[in-house]
Amino acid sequence: MGDHPKDSEKILLTLPWPEPTDLIKRLEEKFPTAEFVYKQVTFNREQGLQEQLPEDIYKDVTALLTLFTLPQSPSSCPNLEFVQLISAGSDKVVQRPIFKETNIPFATVSGIHGPQISEWFIMSLLNFGHAYNALYEAQKERLWQPSLGQKVQDLVGQRLGVYGYGSIGRQAARVAKAMGMDVIAYTASPRDTPEKRKDTGFIVPGTGDPDGSIPSEWYSGTDKASLHHFLGRDIDVLLVGVPLTAATRHVLSTEEFDVLSKKRAFVANVARGPVIDSAALKKALEEGKLRGAALDVTEPEPLPKDNPLWEAPNTFISPHVSGNSNDYAKRAFQVFELNLERKARGEPLINVIDRKKGY
Amino acid sequence: MGDHPKDSEKILLTLPWPEPTDLIKRLEEKFPTAEFVYKQVTFNREQGLQEQLPEDIYKDVTALLTLFTLPQSPSSCPNLEFVQLISAGSDKVVQRPIFKETNIPFATVSGIHGPQISEWFIMSLLNFGHAYNALYEAQKERLWQPSLGQKVQDLVGQRLGVYGYGSIGRQAARVAKAMGMDVIAYTASPRDTPEKRKDTGFIVPGTGDPDGSIPSEWYSGTDKASLHHFLGRDIDVLLVGVPLTAATRHVLSTEEFDVLSKKRAFVANVARGPVIDSAALKKALEEGKLRGAALDVTEPEPLPKDNPLWEAPNTFISPHVSGNSNDYAKRAFQVFELNLERKARGEPLINVIDRKKGY
Repeated sequence: MGDHPKDSEKILLTLPWPEPTDLIKRLEEKFPTAEFVYKQVTFNREQGLQEQLPEDIYKDVTALLTLFTLPQSPSSCPNLEFVQLISAGSDKVVQRPIFKETNIPFATVSGIHGPQISEWFIMSLLNFGHAYNALYEAQKERLWQPSLGQKVQDLVGQRLGVYGYGSIGRQAARVAKAMGMDVIAYTASPRDTPEKRKDTGFIVPGTGDPDGSIPSEWYSGTDKASLHHFLGRDIDVLLVGVPLTAATRHVLSTEEFDVLSKKRAFVANVARGPVIDSAALKKALEEGKLRGAALDVTEPEPLPKDNPLWEAPNTFISPHVSGNSNDYAKRAFQVFELNLERKARGEPLINVIDRKKGY
Repeated sequence: MGDHPKDSEKILLTLPWPEPTDLIKRLEEKFPTAEFVYKQVTFNREQGLQEQLPEDIYKDVTALLTLFTLPQSPSSCPNLEFVQLISAGSDKVVQRPIFKETNIPFATVSGIHGPQISEWFIMSLLNFGHAYNALYEAQKERLWQPSLGQKVQDLVGQRLGVYGYGSIGRQAARVAKAMGMDVIAYTASPRDTPEKRKDTGFIVPGTGDPDGSIPSEWYSGTDKASLHHFLGRDIDVLLVGVPLTAATRHVLSTEEFDVLSKKRAFVANVARGPVIDSAALKKALEEGKLRGAALDVTEPEPLPKDNPLWEAPNTFISPHVSGNSNDYAKRAFQVFELNLERKARGEPLINVIDRKKGY
């Protein structure tokens, strides 16, 4: 026993891809007394639907790793002590009976997207500052045109504002600071003590801002005045990383872009499309109030071919891919392993969804 | 007097662009007793020629800031105590009489290129890992194609080898480490003490690796075996930042790419084109021994339209622009100001060319 799960531990893994044998082997070696069962399920990405399994499969299961495949009824899983979701969001599970009618801890893999999404952000910012698209087009024509690279705005001394200082924003801040940028942060709730500034979720080792010590200034609030105060703090680049809620729907619109026009900010959205009023963004870009934008998320998604947002000047749009990484599964399993260890030691799990907040 | 230059200080600035009034005003405020004279000169970028001025202009000059415009004869500048070049390289001046026949200290602005060149490198690396070109092409067609962004290799845990750990390599290392990479360094001479690992040149504040503490391993040597040992240390990404000398001409060729094929390295060259044997590089890329390349310098330059290097797979080629920055002049003046301060205080200047080494 000791550090290991109890003898009767039966761990079910239901994921929409072929069995990741290396990752499971690692778990088996780490938890030799546990039984690991893998079940590949189908997943319809467009509809966000994942196959459900016969209820009797859950009977002896003590821990479950899954995307969205869950028991229909709590009575089917009397031994279930822990669910590890392999997504960062909880929106697909909060309405399910197994979540609403039990107190079984559900953990997300929040935190594993920090590196790749911050890379997408830094890439977009650098491509913009170094006129990459023009260089790339010239290369296709085999043209050596140094004039295309004469106007380079590097990032030293520029100020990055991170609106929503979560795991993605923290890693973006780490890289931005290394590039010589100044970083300021914004969160809904105040982080007025060192303790409150800490990142309590999973952090990919060697990345992020565990102590919350990177921002030179930290603002907070849920009202418009607080947000405008933050946006007016000479921000050159705004990274949008807030969750989509009723309060953040179209929270960035004409007024906010007017405030950001002070430094003709570059705006990047890696959160959810509806956080930004797209029509207002396009207008601000056309009027030169903003210098450029990078959007990995749009409203709606997929962005239809005839949507005017495609025409926004100085804007990079990608099809909601910034969270992808060849190492996604490896990192998700790191969170699962960490939680299995904590469970075996009787310690609190990491990344557990707060049933009151819903995330 | 005190911290200021002596009363008779006459400082001539000869640069191939219109008078940077803000930057000169700052110097005038800092050194109120000195006389600053600005002379715009012509510059032929293709031929690398800069206009020379009538010799009598140098008569009372005590300090000179210039690109390559220099007195023809040492006898024309009996009061000249210091020359600040506004380029990082010394190759355009080492054959001039004023350099060869005097001991007047010549300083470069080495160090001011770190941020922008490392940004160019990081941009190239991220575009490759995140399939940016495909996303960009899809956007031009207004196509929402998530499948294009499915295979993303982020940089966490990858190893960057910096071949030539100078100011550019140090800043690239700083950013790479912030992204979760491991960094190893290579220098011609051994850096086996903390003192020897320090960067003694100009460093853009907030950037670089002043103490040389970032690399997890540090290799050195000027022979092939030493270089091969370094290249064989599981390098995923190689950044080439060595100066071009007789010893480094075509130093990276078939054998070296074979060593790098162990991890199918990505190779980026921000040094000089001839450091790499282009034909061998293209072959290694075609054979899949290397996963990709980014070249801001080529052999020859400009790269002619019919040069086969344009056809190298997975390769980004840009026309020697990575050192450009809108803040170039500002940073060059920072070095000049620092040296004027040091001169006034009788301290050793920074970035002085070693007349024995020639750089």
